[in-house]
Amino acid sequence: MEHQLPPGFEAAGVHCGIKRNPQKPDLALVVSRRECTAAGVYTQNRVFGAPIAWNRQITPSNQVRAVVVNSGNANACTGQRGLRDAEAMAQAVADQLGCRQQQVLVLSTGIIGQYLPMDKIMRGIAQAREQLGASQDHLLQAARGMLTTDTRPKLASARFSTTRGQDVPLCGIAKGAGMIAPNMATMLAVVMTTAQLAPEQAQQMLHQAADETFNCLSIDGHTSTSDAVLLLATGESGPLEQEDRHRFQAALHQVCEQLARQIADDGEGITHLVQLDVEGCPDRQTARQVAKTVAESVLVKTAIAGGDPNWGRIVSAVGYAGADVPLDRLVLEINGVPIYAQGGPCTFDAQGLAQSMKQQRLVRIRLDFQQGEARVRFWTTDLTVEYVRFNSQYTT
Amino acid sequence: MEHQLPPGFEAAGVHCGIKRNPQKPDLALVVSRRECTAAGVYTQNRVFGAPIAWNRQITPSNQVRAVVVNSGNANACTGQRGLRDAEAMAQAVADQLGCRQQQVLVLSTGIIGQYLPMDKIMRGIAQAREQLGASQDHLLQAARGMLTTDTRPKLASARFSTTRGQDVPLCGIAKGAGMIAPNMATMLAVVMTTAQLAPEQAQQMLHQAADETFNCLSIDGHTSTSDAVLLLATGESGPLEQEDRHRFQAALHQVCEQLARQIADDGEGITHLVQLDVEGCPDRQTARQVAKTVAESVLVKTAIAGGDPNWGRIVSAVGYAGADVPLDRLVLEINGVPIYAQGGPCTFDAQGLAQSMKQQRLVRIRLDFQQGEARVRFWTTDLTVEYVRFNSQYTT
Repeated sequence: MEHQLPPGFEAAGVHCGIKRNPQKPDLALVVSRRECTAAGVYTQNRVFGAPIAWNRQITPSNQVRAVVVNSGNANACTGQRGLRDAEAMAQAVADQLGCRQQQVLVLSTGIIGQYLPMDKIMRGIAQAREQLGASQDHLLQAARGMLTTDTRPKLASARFSTTRGQDVPLCGIAKGAGMIAPNMATMLAVVMTTAQLAPEQAQQMLHQAADETFNCLSIDGHTSTSDAVLLLATGESGPLEQEDRHRFQAALHQVCEQLARQIADDGEGITHLVQLDVEGCPDRQTARQVAKTVAESVLVKTAIAGGDPNWGRIVSAVGYAGADVPLDRLVLEINGVPIYAQGGPCTFDAQGLAQSMKQQRLVRIRLDFQQGEARVRFWTTDLTVEYVRFNSQYTT
Repeated sequence: MEHQLPPGFEAAGVHCGIKRNPQKPDLALVVSRRECTAAGVYTQNRVFGAPIAWNRQITPSNQVRAVVVNSGNANACTGQRGLRDAEAMAQAVADQLGCRQQQVLVLSTGIIGQYLPMDKIMRGIAQAREQLGASQDHLLQAARGMLTTDTRPKLASARFSTTRGQDVPLCGIAKGAGMIAPNMATMLAVVMTTAQLAPEQAQQMLHQAADETFNCLSIDGHTSTSDAVLLLATGESGPLEQEDRHRFQAALHQVCEQLARQIADDGEGITHLVQLDVEGCPDRQTARQVAKTVAESVLVKTAIAGGDPNWGRIVSAVGYAGADVPLDRLVLEINGVPIYAQGGPCTFDAQGLAQSMKQQRLVRIRLDFQQGEARVRFWTTDLTVEYVRFNSQYTT
């Protein structure tokens, strides 16, 4: 799929010198030609980066003009100086665009506990401003400018037609969840659209979409200090009727889900992407609790790395998830094959199933409690020798 | 330290054929010559083995005569037939000893979802009965009979004198936390003593000791279906005054802590044992929540494997622990060296600290919130390439 900036947006990605490799952009700028609605969903970590503190004061808003992103340094655990640096980034972009500081959102990802090289960043902002453009390549460079240990940029698009026949495009870029040399996994995403949304409405819709997608993604269970998802909506395509708002929510979900899935699929050293469907629960919270516990079990993840349909590890993870749902009707399937039901193992072709797990990158696990209508789809990865090797490399 | 069965106990460990290697005992029997007080603390997993269900009906009790343990098969997820098998094990021991079925506790550890080879177990029980004895070697064989992927038996002892000058010995044996081919980590422990305790009193004291030791131990965060800690107290050394009960509690804590530490130190593929002290919290629950979150962070554990004093991973794990304690006075030390304080990194000799982490098996992490008096000591391990390799071996 060819991804394009929605009309009204420009973007750029440049190398300003935070990363050593001059081939890798480390600063991205996304600009809306006019003031737009902006919503943000941020990390729930009580330790959070300076940019998160800055953005929280601003979103939701209907006056945002730009998002500036740097990669290679998270500006987290950097105290008052870090806050001043985040503000200075916003001010520098505002100076370039002729707007106010409060109209600029800031994202930083990378190593934590180190101060930003502000001289480089200032030059990078000026350079990015010069290079702004609306082409596919501009979009791609901005997406590349967010990356840290990612092996590829992440882009996703969707579009829908309003009841009045107006075309509404959405386009998102994201990074993560790679380890930041050497500190933590972070996910960032910026979704742009021409839809017309009030700030609170945008905030509520983004919250719902993030809740169903990015918050259903766990690679290592370690919540970053810098996670952020932003939605920018210019309003150019005019007001949305109620039916249009449903369509927008669905399109936003689609973009966020594609980005979340790409993030998991680019997890460090992974050999399997795991799609975990937890179904038949009395409520969604229960389904999510079970999904998160199974997804984060080191034993489940190592079994998947080995292509082992090890129902014992999955069922026992369900058992300690702390979810208050009866287990007596639980059915567990891997890749569509029932392997555990009604309290005991099923008869199945273990060798054949193992073979399919080894050959396919995607592993589908389905847990059906048959106790209700609530369900959740969760994404995770296997845990490989390469992941551990990568993350225990000595870097101090 | 030389470990000995307390007077009044006999033990045996035999090979009955559950494990393939005839050099490895797979059935252990511990017998009290007279009826004794017995308490039990069991797994909190909602999926639990048949022996757990059996023991829960019995403890606390003042009439227990024996504990029979098999390794190599957990008798978990085995439905009604599994329950009948656990009862049959108790009955077989009762027949041998001339007591009632309800006087025999049962422990099983190993693969889950497979039925016990009852013919082998029956022969093993008869054989163990013949070989019962009170020597150090008998104790050691019983400790070996509990093991699965452990590389060595775990034994611990303590003793104290009562206010009347009576000597009270305690001795414990344990296994874990190794993966069971290929299903899960399980810990089992049996502590024997001559102290005189009422059943409810024994239960309460064991609960407290387990809470402070075995429940402060996490290797992979995966709660087994079969975890159990048993306390057997013959009463031979006579009643305990109030001061003696404090001494007994301290001695019981000491034995349980030694066993918990040995379990962590024998974790699969580990290269570092981590002692995590979380201090200065408003309450113990908060301290434990922080400790568990840090101890189970894959990123913290891989950093330790690499000898990397990576404070960013530790502080960010604190941040997502969900604990409601202010972070502004938090001090983090590794091996006695302050590396993070008052919201920012300290100046420290990173190379020197890394060198000490690489050279020593024990890593001491201390988190002091300076917000209260509550503290917890928690044990964990690093996460190595060898652990993942071991646990992703294809075994189905």
